[in-house]
Amino acid sequence: MNPTLEHLSAHRTIRKFTAEPVAEEDVRQAVAAAQMASTSSNIQAYSLLRIRDAQTRARLVTLTGGQPQVAQGAFFVVCGDTRRHRLAARQHGEEYVCNLEAVLLMVTDAALFAQNLALAFESLGLGICFIGGLRNQLPDVDHLLELPEGVLPLFGLCVGHPDDDPSPRPRLELDAVLIEERYPEDATVLAKLAGYDERMRQYYAERGNPGHDWTSGIVRKFREPKREHLFEFFRAKGVTWG
Amino acid sequence: MNPTLEHLSAHRTIRKFTAEPVAEEDVRQAVAAAQMASTSSNIQAYSLLRIRDAQTRARLVTLTGGQPQVAQGAFFVVCGDTRRHRLAARQHGEEYVCNLEAVLLMVTDAALFAQNLALAFESLGLGICFIGGLRNQLPDVDHLLELPEGVLPLFGLCVGHPDDDPSPRPRLELDAVLIEERYPEDATVLAKLAGYDERMRQYYAERGNPGHDWTSGIVRKFREPKREHLFEFFRAKGVTWG
Repeated sequence: MNPTLEHLSAHRTIRKFTAEPVAEEDVRQAVAAAQMASTSSNIQAYSLLRIRDAQTRARLVTLTGGQPQVAQGAFFVVCGDTRRHRLAARQHGEEYVCNLEAVLLMVTDAALFAQNLALAFESLGLGICFIGGLRNQLPDVDHLLELPEGVLPLFGLCVGHPDDDPSPRPRLELDAVLIEERYPEDATVLAKLAGYDERMRQYYAERGNPGHDWTSGIVRKFREPKREHLFEFFRAKGVTWG
Repeated sequence: MNPTLEHLSAHRTIRKFTAEPVAEEDVRQAVAAAQMASTSSNIQAYSLLRIRDAQTRARLVTLTGGQPQVAQGAFFVVCGDTRRHRLAARQHGEEYVCNLEAVLLMVTDAALFAQNLALAFESLGLGICFIGGLRNQLPDVDHLLELPEGVLPLFGLCVGHPDDDPSPRPRLELDAVLIEERYPEDATVLAKLAGYDERMRQYYAERGNPGHDWTSGIVRKFREPKREHLFEFFRAKGVTWG
């Protein structure tokens, strides 16, 4: 296995950081490298907000569901950014349309960039944790950060010196994800999920959490609509959908 | 600069591949490593379809806008996958809800995975090219690949032995993307875009394409609604939006 494959394979989320600050130079190096991620037609539809203010960070801990690491280390908000595109259009006297395709572009662009960024930080000896809980109360986050039209906060990113050493979490088996030519029948998919449940029960049991598996967690997560405010929030930020 | 930062910084899209096939072992190694990308609450909401059939590939060249590299090297379709979640819910006798939040989860998860995958392939000496044109006629792609409800094709990925050696394309300046605390005023953003336009005019001119800049391309891209079929297509595939 080459060093890149080793790095990718060794990823685990770090949720606890030491008090040692993240060096400014590390942030700049990591962001510069991350910007070289693929971007659809070079639109670069993302921005990275660094939040330092302690009061804002404390409020963000609450808004993201009480995750203490949001106030530790360095904290960033990964945004889909169509503002630059909007301003360019206005300057050229042209319309700017932000429909679902533009949303897919910004979310994809932002995530490709964010994954590069995570790897860049890890290569510098830092640990990372994405914060999807940023979307729990997204209008409040948006208001707190005073984001203008066209800038959509998507998720948070905590970065710091690791104060924890968890082992990587097992994933679905490779052949559940890498599919040849045609998507398999339901029975085949369910058999793979049963195998993964078995592995995950063992994984959780070894960590003092017996009786947990993957499918039960998934079912609980999606049985009710989640974050229903998002559709209207995206519209309020300039997405026309349709 | 450490080797990871060097790798990230050196990325360029490869659009032309030699006839040398991509080794099966390389694909399996790359996918296994890519699976270790962060995934929201471990939902792993993606699948990777490998398309080998020559007729299907030829049809995909047409459907993606005539990009010949889709028929070269190895071709993959990166899918947002909620099918596993749906089947688990059905088995547990529970509802499954796929709203905008679930779409954001699947697109983010798929892109984090895809960026890892791209880097893994590059580390093996291969070149990659994402194909957003897969969404040009997405219902036709979906029909061609016979994808079931809950599996959303998002973009393509071409992988092969490079038969081209382009230089990396300059990105927005770092401080246009890395923002401290609060999003800047419009005038500040526009000044940065003017600087980038200047750099890009030079970049294009040096490559025999004088008169091109960044903002003009962006304005052309977004002045009319793009891929308007997507909203209904996602609904037909099981997304309730709202």
